[in-house]
Amino acid sequence: MHTGFAFLEIGLTRQKNTINILFKNIFIITVGLLLYYIAGFNLMYPGFADGSAGIFEFAGFGITPPENGMTPDYADGGYTWWTDFLFQGMFAATAATIVSGAVAERMKIGPFMVFTIIYVGIVYPIAGSWKWGGGFLDQLGFYDFAGSTLVHSVGGWAALVAVYLLGSRIGKFKNGKPQAIPGHNIPLATAGVLILWLGWFGFNGGSVLSADPELTSLTLVTTCLAAAAGGVVAALVSFLKYKNLDLTMFLNGVLGGLVGITAGADVMTPESAIIIGAIAGSLIVFAVAFVDAIKLDDPVGAIAVHLICGIWGTLAVGIFSTNPEHTFLTQLIGVACYAAFCLTTSFIIIFTLKKAVGIRVSEKEELEGLDAHEHGMDAYSDFRMNEH
Amino acid sequence: MHTGFAFLEIGLTRQKNTINILFKNIFIITVGLLLYYIAGFNLMYPGFADGSAGIFEFAGFGITPPENGMTPDYADGGYTWWTDFLFQGMFAATAATIVSGAVAERMKIGPFMVFTIIYVGIVYPIAGSWKWGGGFLDQLGFYDFAGSTLVHSVGGWAALVAVYLLGSRIGKFKNGKPQAIPGHNIPLATAGVLILWLGWFGFNGGSVLSADPELTSLTLVTTCLAAAAGGVVAALVSFLKYKNLDLTMFLNGVLGGLVGITAGADVMTPESAIIIGAIAGSLIVFAVAFVDAIKLDDPVGAIAVHLICGIWGTLAVGIFSTNPEHTFLTQLIGVACYAAFCLTTSFIIIFTLKKAVGIRVSEKEELEGLDAHEHGMDAYSDFRMNEH
Amino acid sequence: MHTGFAFLEIGLTRQKNTINILFKNIFIITVGLLLYYIAGFNLMYPGFADGSAGIFEFAGFGITPPENGMTPDYADGGYTWWTDFLFQGMFAATAATIVSGAVAERMKIGPFMVFTIIYVGIVYPIAGSWKWGGGFLDQLGFYDFAGSTLVHSVGGWAALVAVYLLGSRIGKFKNGKPQAIPGHNIPLATAGVLILWLGWFGFNGGSVLSADPELTSLTLVTTCLAAAAGGVVAALVSFLKYKNLDLTMFLNGVLGGLVGITAGADVMTPESAIIIGAIAGSLIVFAVAFVDAIKLDDPVGAIAVHLICGIWGTLAVGIFSTNPEHTFLTQLIGVACYAAFCLTTSFIIIFTLKKAVGIRVSEKEELEGLDAHEHGMDAYSDFRMNEH
Repeated sequence: MHTGFAFLEIGLTRQKNTINILFKNIFIITVGLLLYYIAGFNLMYPGFADGSAGIFEFAGFGITPPENGMTPDYADGGYTWWTDFLFQGMFAATAATIVSGAVAERMKIGPFMVFTIIYVGIVYPIAGSWKWGGGFLDQLGFYDFAGSTLVHSVGGWAALVAVYLLGSRIGKFKNGKPQAIPGHNIPLATAGVLILWLGWFGFNGGSVLSADPELTSLTLVTTCLAAAAGGVVAALVSFLKYKNLDLTMFLNGVLGGLVGITAGADVMTPESAIIIGAIAGSLIVFAVAFVDAIKLDDPVGAIAVHLICGIWGTLAVGIFSTNPEHTFLTQLIGVACYAAFCLTTSFIIIFTLKKAVGIRVSEKEELEGLDAHEHGMDAYSDFRMNEH
Repeated sequence: MHTGFAFLEIGLTRQKNTINILFKNIFIITVGLLLYYIAGFNLMYPGFADGSAGIFEFAGFGITPPENGMTPDYADGGYTWWTDFLFQGMFAATAATIVSGAVAERMKIGPFMVFTIIYVGIVYPIAGSWKWGGGFLDQLGFYDFAGSTLVHSVGGWAALVAVYLLGSRIGKFKNGKPQAIPGHNIPLATAGVLILWLGWFGFNGGSVLSADPELTSLTLVTTCLAAAAGGVVAALVSFLKYKNLDLTMFLNGVLGGLVGITAGADVMTPESAIIIGAIAGSLIVFAVAFVDAIKLDDPVGAIAVHLICGIWGTLAVGIFSTNPEHTFLTQLIGVACYAAFCLTTSFIIIFTLKKAVGIRVSEKEELEGLDAHEHGMDAYSDFRMNEH
Repeated sequence: MHTGFAFLEIGLTRQKNTINILFKNIFIITVGLLLYYIAGFNLMYPGFADGSAGIFEFAGFGITPPENGMTPDYADGGYTWWTDFLFQGMFAATAATIVSGAVAERMKIGPFMVFTIIYVGIVYPIAGSWKWGGGFLDQLGFYDFAGSTLVHSVGGWAALVAVYLLGSRIGKFKNGKPQAIPGHNIPLATAGVLILWLGWFGFNGGSVLSADPELTSLTLVTTCLAAAAGGVVAALVSFLKYKNLDLTMFLNGVLGGLVGITAGADVMTPESAIIIGAIAGSLIVFAVAFVDAIKLDDPVGAIAVHLICGIWGTLAVGIFSTNPEHTFLTQLIGVACYAAFCLTTSFIIIFTLKKAVGIRVSEKEELEGLDAHEHGMDAYSDFRMNEH
């Protein structure tokens, strides 16, 4: 899954910042996993055994599985504590990966690492505990199957804040008009999306947390149909709007469909999944244009894909769910709580970093590329490059 | 799996048509899946419940699983209807992918999309119903385990027709002699083959449709040994014929071995699998040379790999199968029926498109690349390219 | 898994030798699998049924599973003979892959193929039989869960011998000082490591050879934590030593952590796994510097990653194992036996090849690249390259 995110981010940006992006992504995976072991898991599932968590609770450092090694509630007790840790640990790192894409090509790596440690190590698990840890939103009836809000929006809100505080890349806006800064390796970006699609199978399939083969396979079908519909509609809308067969929009549409179905993949008919994906796909096209219009510079479209489609997917559960207990209002409350918490915390972290040490690389470094300055390496040393 | 096909096709063609190939492949996957949901599955398995289908039958739009959600016959009833849909939907798109490779670098994208919709949406499922849907070839005793004919030859026949109607790329034949047009990214092509090999595990392993671990694992062993033998023999024959350690031939040999074993992977001894793969590997070398000799231009070797080895693999079941009910004659009848149906339908579709709107891009567009003209994008915008 | 190794090796070397590396890797996989079928499996598990093997025994050509098709001892008898063959066959090829990386960019392909056939076909299975085949080291109590020694060191010792006999690449040492020869495609190398990490899940997870979900999932957790710790510590030590955020060192640290945990992934607490990974990560940085200092040229760091971390991981079982029967002394004896056997056999093979036919390409061929001379192909024919 993280291979997919890394490929997508690299592919849609310029070659001179490739090493930097790869370094950030490897950092996120390795440090995220260690942090999640040290404290994250017990912050997120503090009341795992008794379901008593409210807004904040911490079950101690390290992980001690219960005596029989099984999770109490999942998969009729057939899911091990360790499997659950790994699965959730992989989710945890995703939030920071989303931000990484949005701040690409201009953020200093030191502050980004500090942000990652705090956001993945503390903010994400606390936010997650509200629903998946049995916290107050879970008790309220809020539903988020596999993370449209808990993973994607949590990353998306921070991406929004980071992009706002960081400013746009040099050359992105000329006389107030957004300029295309083409990605340097579209095959890599496409591979990234296809790998992510496959990864989502594990993501959503595994989130069923149950041995019920029919529910698991239905979840895979809704996931796939939403992805397909998202891609087709995004390509179509983009073609009608810009008269262009835009591959990047096609790819982002697939991702938007995947993010959109994630909140309710197990409580949808296939027909609803197609509708949710299709709406996500058209949202993507307009959201990308809107982000440009308000002069935010999001190189990989992270805000459109993860934030906008994450919100849409969460609300869609309130509209399309086959479970009558899911209501639009509860879903909206959930979205609002996460918005408030994530906007506040990410603003505090990034604003503090900005004032304390600065978060943006120098103009020279940005123009010459972060690879040369922060890493002293070149991603493609044998190839000749265009100057720009 | 589709990542593998896309990588292979890109890697073996020129960089100026990369976006076009990626767009086609993403289109095939997403639209193919939607079409298969809307009608394909019920065209292909119209008599799933009672096995009564003959040549053509349609069980209605959308998918309604039986009450208990399980397929009646597979895996002792342990295979869900939805799993079956996804699995078959992935197969369906493969037929169009094969054609995509053969027509690369010169076919207009609009007509290709129309062809894909008709061929994947209607032709493939009807053809498939004859055997996998319990139709007349199934009743006759024809055997095709995982698609040497039903998937690979179905795509291969259409590739042959398309290549014939489309003509060769500019510069492919000079004074009647075939010229090498080298692929632009061989690591990507190699990765594609390795991914396809891995995907074939799922393909053939999953086609066992049963919980019998011994049969499943034997099937994986025959699959792997045929792939290995195909690669080694293709490389060897190519070395003897051309005095050259040709990586592309090695890779196509692996694929040929995989296609060849696909019809009978579950009814072979490992020794037979090695023989089938080895013959497929040598067929590849001669088939590629033969396609060149009759002045057809198949940039990725799709006809040799999917059509020739698909036919060989289907006939090989009649020779090597451990099941005495499989006969060479029945296999030959099956091959002939598919040849007749696929040649006719694909000719009608593509010839009609050729007369109605034209299927070939302009000379200028072909020389400058389809990416610039059809998509307004560049696959590798930071890299400097050789002119040709 | 082999996709991962191939990507890593390509990414860290120069573009002019890419086809050669890919060819070698496809050769290793296909030929290795065939050899393992013909004789390797029965050399390695000669006394599978009765556990009577000592130092050398051969159960005959081809594979004949026992009547019920199951392995007698593994997974409560739930593991099939064929699955075991495939799994072990994939391991077998890895040893040669490790050598491939170390000799990259200067070894003749013919002698390399001969070496691969002998080493994978005969040396590896005999060495493996000592422990996994129930031989004398197994009887002594030596433990190697998934191959820190049996796979990685077996490859690593041969890599050391080959690098010594082959000499360094032209330009690697100037006036006695090691020069950086940067890899040409770092995204590919990074993808290779991430794919390998994922492959290790199968590697170590599958090696549990049991249906116990808690042990399997604990093994995945120790594997992941060791990888994460290895990467972070290697990056940190490298930063402190060289004041540089070195992505290659980060990646090699991840691999070092994986190799290090492999010998005991199922007998470790998560805390021990973190310590083992962290030590492996720092070993990598110093081992890479040491290999340079003694004027050996190992383009991909194979000796540091596979040999040094393989030894460390094997010894670490004697220190950290939760099973009191594992002792440091027994582990040390095992390491010494493999060192003696592998150094001797690989020296005999490679030295003989050197004297008989020569193992090194000509200076002209090395400077112009092996792709042009041995394969007559170009990996990236559309791209313009820097001369060097």
